Amino acid sequence: MALILSRADVQRSLDMTEAINAMRLAFGALYTDHAQAPQRLAVDLPEKSLALLMPSLLQTNQQHMFGLKVVTIVPQNLSRNMPRIFASILLLDATTGQTIAIMEGGWLTAMRTGAVSGLATELLARKDADILALFGAGAQAPTQVLAIHTVRPLREVRVVNRNDTHYHDLVQSLQLLLGPACPPIRRALSSKDALTGASLVACATVSTTPLFSWNEIAPGTHINAIGAFTPEMCEVDP
Amino acid sequence: MALILSRADVQRSLDMTEAINAMRLAFGALYTDHAQAPQRLAVDLPEKSLALLMPSLLQTNQQHMFGLKVVTIVPQNLSRNMPRIFASILLLDATTGQTIAIMEGGWLTAMRTGAVSGLATELLARKDADILALFGAGAQAPTQVLAIHTVRPLREVRVVNRNDTHYHDLVQSLQLLLGPACPPIRRALSSKDALTGASLVACATVSTTPLFSWNEIAPGTHINAIGAFTPEMCEVDP
Repeated sequence: MALILSRADVQRSLDMTEAINAMRLAFGALYTDHAQAPQRLAVDLPEKSLALLMPSLLQTNQQHMFGLKVVTIVPQNLSRNMPRIFASILLLDATTGQTIAIMEGGWLTAMRTGAVSGLATELLARKDADILALFGAGAQAPTQVLAIHTVRPLREVRVVNRNDTHYHDLVQSLQLLLGPACPPIRRALSSKDALTGASLVACATVSTTPLFSWNEIAPGTHINAIGAFTPEMCEVDP
Repeated sequence: MALILSRADVQRSLDMTEAINAMRLAFGALYTDHAQAPQRLAVDLPEKSLALLMPSLLQTNQQHMFGLKVVTIVPQNLSRNMPRIFASILLLDATTGQTIAIMEGGWLTAMRTGAVSGLATELLARKDADILALFGAGAQAPTQVLAIHTVRPLREVRVVNRNDTHYHDLVQSLQLLLGPACPPIRRALSSKDALTGASLVACATVSTTPLFSWNEIAPGTHINAIGAFTPEMCEVDP
């Protein structure tokens, strides 16, 4: 029988340094044709909900793995006091087809999304970058900060967002995730307030208009913008 | 956390009468547009293996369910002394997206395939049909016999197949599944020997040529032919 991992099991089993190294390996494999991410399959559910089937294949010398993420996006869940998104991940041995693990997918998704920003920041940001301007305080925000802090230890995090509860949840999550290593976090008064002196920017919103203007950004600033996932969304002025 | 069901759990939880009634409900729902079976997604694995993602959706007054079967077909597994096919099934609440159950899919697949033949036999075969000619003694054979025996109690099962081990495995499986209710089973000498006097025929082979000629079949005989799954395969002379 396969290994069954709850969200807490996944949280306990994976740290951000490992997640970033996994992304380094995965992007390398994709670049050298040792990984595939076939087109996802979408199935319409009732009430404008959606199920997404997201397969992927990794074939390196060390690993032959087939992964499948099953995600449901149910807008009506907010009125049910339930998460809008549920995710499960199946991991199969790509050589034998045997199921190795079945796990809760929400935390891994957030970690992976963070880890990609962490990897990009490690490779592209200035070595001395240590102040982060963060736009958005939703589900993806904690792991974005965690990942960036892992590769560029932060002196300060400045948060631009609208929802008070989300802001306080973010602070609490980061203190839980980072403990004594948690950098000082403050809520910015404006995008200008957040961006002045910041050499790192993280955008994790569903905004349809740019979150800042380019003249607020100093030369050499590194920007991770991960929020937009439809053509209508736009976090950074093109 | 979702319910996790092993093969043994599924075997214990589902009998053939329930499976046939589930198929009655599912085909009814499909006919009235309350069910969908979207095009499956195939992903190539190494060594000419294949992963299939098979989603389905049921939306009746009583049930809103999203099912996903993940099947791997790995020809090389035979040389590894492992099953050629592995299957897992995820069952999600289609309204909320929550995972209800994750289960081993091999037994359910065999039961479902049997149940469809059982339903067809119940609706279409002569009421007094009680002798079955079975072609093939592979993985699907036991549940074909089980299903037909459930709706038309059998007086005799005559098996046409080539592999001795498969024949003996089939007899053992049926005795295990049916216990004292197991009908007499014998190996037929030829298709003619099997078909003479048989009012029920089940074909569960990967044959590429017809298994019998029409003049061996008596008028009013009911035939379930479930083996062919590519255009090259052919169990019944068209």
